[in-house]
Amino acid sequence: MKKIDMLTPIGILIGISMVVFGVISSGGMSGFLAFIDVPSILIVLGGVFGTLCVSFPLKQLKNVGRVGKQAFQSKEINVEEIVGTFVHLSEKARREGLLSLEAELEQIDDSFVKKGILLAIDGVEPEMIRELLEAEIAAVEERHTRGRSMFEKAGDYAPAWGMIGTLVGLVLMLKSLNTPSSLGPNMAIALLTTFYGALLSNLFFQPIAAKLAGKTEHELFVKEVIIEGVIGLQAGQNSRFVQAKLKVFAPVEKRKLEEKREHVREA
Amino acid sequence: MKKIDMLTPIGILIGISMVVFGVISSGGMSGFLAFIDVPSILIVLGGVFGTLCVSFPLKQLKNVGRVGKQAFQSKEINVEEIVGTFVHLSEKARREGLLSLEAELEQIDDSFVKKGILLAIDGVEPEMIRELLEAEIAAVEERHTRGRSMFEKAGDYAPAWGMIGTLVGLVLMLKSLNTPSSLGPNMAIALLTTFYGALLSNLFFQPIAAKLAGKTEHELFVKEVIIEGVIGLQAGQNSRFVQAKLKVFAPVEKRKLEEKREHVREA
Amino acid sequence: MKKIDMLTPIGILIGISMVVFGVISSGGMSGFLAFIDVPSILIVLGGVFGTLCVSFPLKQLKNVGRVGKQAFQSKEINVEEIVGTFVHLSEKARREGLLSLEAELEQIDDSFVKKGILLAIDGVEPEMIRELLEAEIAAVEERHTRGRSMFEKAGDYAPAWGMIGTLVGLVLMLKSLNTPSSLGPNMAIALLTTFYGALLSNLFFQPIAAKLAGKTEHELFVKEVIIEGVIGLQAGQNSRFVQAKLKVFAPVEKRKLEEKREHVREA
Amino acid sequence: MKKIDMLTPIGILIGISMVVFGVISSGGMSGFLAFIDVPSILIVLGGVFGTLCVSFPLKQLKNVGRVGKQAFQSKEINVEEIVGTFVHLSEKARREGLLSLEAELEQIDDSFVKKGILLAIDGVEPEMIRELLEAEIAAVEERHTRGRSMFEKAGDYAPAWGMIGTLVGLVLMLKSLNTPSSLGPNMAIALLTTFYGALLSNLFFQPIAAKLAGKTEHELFVKEVIIEGVIGLQAGQNSRFVQAKLKVFAPVEKRKLEEKREHVREA
Amino acid sequence: MKKIDMLTPIGILIGISMVVFGVISSGGMSGFLAFIDVPSILIVLGGVFGTLCVSFPLKQLKNVGRVGKQAFQSKEINVEEIVGTFVHLSEKARREGLLSLEAELEQIDDSFVKKGILLAIDGVEPEMIRELLEAEIAAVEERHTRGRSMFEKAGDYAPAWGMIGTLVGLVLMLKSLNTPSSLGPNMAIALLTTFYGALLSNLFFQPIAAKLAGKTEHELFVKEVIIEGVIGLQAGQNSRFVQAKLKVFAPVEKRKLEEKREHVREA
Repeated sequence: MKKIDMLTPIGILIGISMVVFGVISSGGMSGFLAFIDVPSILIVLGGVFGTLCVSFPLKQLKNVGRVGKQAFQSKEINVEEIVGTFVHLSEKARREGLLSLEAELEQIDDSFVKKGILLAIDGVEPEMIRELLEAEIAAVEERHTRGRSMFEKAGDYAPAWGMIGTLVGLVLMLKSLNTPSSLGPNMAIALLTTFYGALLSNLFFQPIAAKLAGKTEHELFVKEVIIEGVIGLQAGQNSRFVQAKLKVFAPVEKRKLEEKREHVREA
Repeated sequence: MKKIDMLTPIGILIGISMVVFGVISSGGMSGFLAFIDVPSILIVLGGVFGTLCVSFPLKQLKNVGRVGKQAFQSKEINVEEIVGTFVHLSEKARREGLLSLEAELEQIDDSFVKKGILLAIDGVEPEMIRELLEAEIAAVEERHTRGRSMFEKAGDYAPAWGMIGTLVGLVLMLKSLNTPSSLGPNMAIALLTTFYGALLSNLFFQPIAAKLAGKTEHELFVKEVIIEGVIGLQAGQNSRFVQAKLKVFAPVEKRKLEEKREHVREA
Repeated sequence: MKKIDMLTPIGILIGISMVVFGVISSGGMSGFLAFIDVPSILIVLGGVFGTLCVSFPLKQLKNVGRVGKQAFQSKEINVEEIVGTFVHLSEKARREGLLSLEAELEQIDDSFVKKGILLAIDGVEPEMIRELLEAEIAAVEERHTRGRSMFEKAGDYAPAWGMIGTLVGLVLMLKSLNTPSSLGPNMAIALLTTFYGALLSNLFFQPIAAKLAGKTEHELFVKEVIIEGVIGLQAGQNSRFVQAKLKVFAPVEKRKLEEKREHVREA
Repeated sequence: MKKIDMLTPIGILIGISMVVFGVISSGGMSGFLAFIDVPSILIVLGGVFGTLCVSFPLKQLKNVGRVGKQAFQSKEINVEEIVGTFVHLSEKARREGLLSLEAELEQIDDSFVKKGILLAIDGVEPEMIRELLEAEIAAVEERHTRGRSMFEKAGDYAPAWGMIGTLVGLVLMLKSLNTPSSLGPNMAIALLTTFYGALLSNLFFQPIAAKLAGKTEHELFVKEVIIEGVIGLQAGQNSRFVQAKLKVFAPVEKRKLEEKREHVREA
Repeated sequence: MKKIDMLTPIGILIGISMVVFGVISSGGMSGFLAFIDVPSILIVLGGVFGTLCVSFPLKQLKNVGRVGKQAFQSKEINVEEIVGTFVHLSEKARREGLLSLEAELEQIDDSFVKKGILLAIDGVEPEMIRELLEAEIAAVEERHTRGRSMFEKAGDYAPAWGMIGTLVGLVLMLKSLNTPSSLGPNMAIALLTTFYGALLSNLFFQPIAAKLAGKTEHELFVKEVIIEGVIGLQAGQNSRFVQAKLKVFAPVEKRKLEEKREHVREA
């Protein structure tokens, strides 16, 4: 189930609001226009885009939109639900045999879980199941790392292009110092590319790369839990052990709650 | 037992005092007002907050307060007490059997120790005990690393937002150079965001992240000692060996003292 | 099959266009001449070249052209074709024996695949096959890393030489401040080396190193797939398992398509 | 045997002399006073101290003096002496049995060597000896790393506090630009904190951390040699093999000398 | 066979020529004198030397000359010759037995090869041979890393001392702003230390450290090849397998040539 990760656009909005607020609070509404300079923003964005073209293959560059979009989406992967599923399945498998799980497969959405259980039912050796699923995890990780690296590089190059733009402005300004009255405004325009570079890097590229990294980490982690579940399932491990092992991964707060309930029950 | 880690607020106070002292010593009390500029501080804090919203998922951001609070608290985990507990328990286990430890469980506060001993009493295989407890440690470490990373990122972004704010101020100032008398004061205000960004990063975010890292490391280390203790306990290892192995982890000074005492006794 | 990787020259062109556009948009055509200063560019390029001479052995420096050219070429290595080849070969090997593969060898272009299959046919032990082929991969990786490191170092040194050039200009300018009218233009020239250093580093050296790294990674990855294929082939693994394992490595989109087709077929 | 590591104070003296020389050579004796500004140095040192308080627990901060002192001391650990000891002991052990080593123990100063040999005499299994001694090494390493990290952090924070101090000075100066005559001197004072921060970081904190790292590395290396010696001793390894293996670790020059001597003897 | 690595002095010469060219092209011959300021260069070199004294033990500092000299020398280690030697020896060993190699020893120059073969002849177990030779490699690596680290640290500290010198100059200059005519020249002198620091770091210390790293890597790599050769030799491995395995390490061009020749021969 894909939902919108509202926090990403909200965060960008907050950042932009801060800049706008800063401009208006010290320069008024009229000062606002000083920050909109289309050539400057084109130089920074164009320069970064050119650099990315040199840095990455076409196949990867074409994904930049799809990868970036993921920072605005949130896949709801509920670890506890998955743990619950495996506890349930391992109980059933111990009672009625592994083959009985075939009937349960239709209710499972996650294709990775499905694949794992199918391999277990097919009687593939645990070593091979682990090998196949780990290979899939490694491939997912590599794909994500590669996609994310475009945003990381853009975060590195944006300030550099900001500086290149400012150097262009400075050289032109210094060359014609004979009109000192235009010194200030020209310098202001020269600084705009540095400003755009810093803003793009620190509000877009770097934070989006960070969010993508977090999402990848979570996804890989869930997949690791699933592998443990599948292996435990096939080995016919005690469902209590499976639960204990998988429950470790559940977030703290929930566990505290459960422990408290257990205390109450024990008392 | 949670106590306040006085050093964190004291350190922040010392840092702020140094700044105040610097301001007053060269600018007098009147200079002090030049450093309080609400819009500037809002830009830096707001910008950092916006960037964090883009960088992290909501679930994690909500923890920022709880994580930060830990830098102001000190959990008293006494390694020697734990070593003592295990030496005592391993002696008892060798005399009266592992099951006799059940009676001791009530006097143990630490839930991790309790869990480990329960697993040992239940006769779970050492491999599995280690696996379960190591998984718990890994999960704790991951949780802490993730929490701390918010402060690390804030420490990275604060100076960047300080620079963005200063660039905004500079551009506005340079645009209207026709009033040279206001040049200095405007420049002063422009520099304030850089000042706030540097102060927030170097006195709050980075050091708090460092303290959290230290606390995590200590906690993980204690948990590793406990695992060794539980495994040794179950294996019925000689209490002297358990002691020797665990004592390695005790701080130097204490050990030196003990060694001296032993020398005295030997003499 | 070597084709031109158009993206590399296109990216460099885009970057240069942005600079030209920036110059013209704020300085007009006449401003353009201010950015062409042969001595400045000679200082930066010559300095970087001198530093590379100190940093690397002659044998490696002589390769700089050949290595750099690779960033402008794209080897078409089709992973799926290789997977297909191995699925086909493993079926044949199971039906007609490993020796039957000898006839297929002529149709295989890739010398690494050929070498692997020859070793398999010769009945060399799987351990040794893996050892030999992994050694070859390691040697390739080392060779590429070494070649790439020249561009990485150049990317580090170019801004440093830009700064050295600017310092030379600044010192000369400041020494003769008695002619204030020449202050601006001299400062402009002094900044040119910094400009060249930044442009060379951020548009050439660093991105080219990034592209080379991507190409190396892909090549090594393909070679790893081939090793798995060869080993599976010799072990007489089920072609379905070989396919499942190798298919993991195929790009996402294709796999999604295939899965959809399977759904259709199943329905 | 602890001696003073004269190089540490000599190096600091050389560094300070260079600064003094630079001041006098271009500013004369009168210029010297411009560099002594107690508030500035208090801000930098106080700020760094405050930051360290936030960053580290009290237990560790209290060690800062003891840790720093080690950079001024040199423990004479003679690897060759240790190798000689083990060659001697392994010969004796092979002739007269392990128990005969008990008489030799009194002549050994190093408590780590003593401990290892005692474990060997006690007939503790090699695995356990290694485990115990490695655990001790790991604990020593962790303790040293933690102690050193205070100097590393101080080396990071000192320039940052230098900049904070300079920003304070700049803001105050710019606010009151109406007295242009005081501009220069005020700016000079503002720069002093940056100067102190750079000097403290590059002449004290960072180099001391480097020296501590070197000492730790050497100590751990010696301890590793000792473990190899103890294990070899107990296994009754040929003293020639023990010697060959341990001699590898001796410094180059000595070995060259020995080899030459052997050549002479062979001739 | 030690030869001079001409590239190191040539590279330094090129770098210095670029600076001289830059000075003359924009300042003429008279400008040249502005860059020779003995106190400035003394401050940077002296400061770096002081810092190195604090950072390293005496034993290591005394080697700085010997280590630096290695960047100007090139040891001719011919991998192919070594591969050839081992192919030859392994054939002889299979025909006439390992002991027959004793006669060959005199023709081998490399002491590491000699040592390895002697161990093989003596019938030392392969595990132990590998252990002894790997220990020697590790010791060589550590020694080189330590030697190189002096140049790396000098490369870090030189710009820092350049900045310290410039700060000294700036503070002195700003203090006496009442003589504005001397402003420029004083500022020029202040910048000289920054210039020296940048030049020393980017033309000497860092590139020399890079060259030393390359030489070390190559030497270790050759030693690894030798270990594989010795082990293969003793195990009586087929000389073709030894050759195949070692040939992997030969440079690309040569291998391509050989492959072409083979194609020709096959045709």
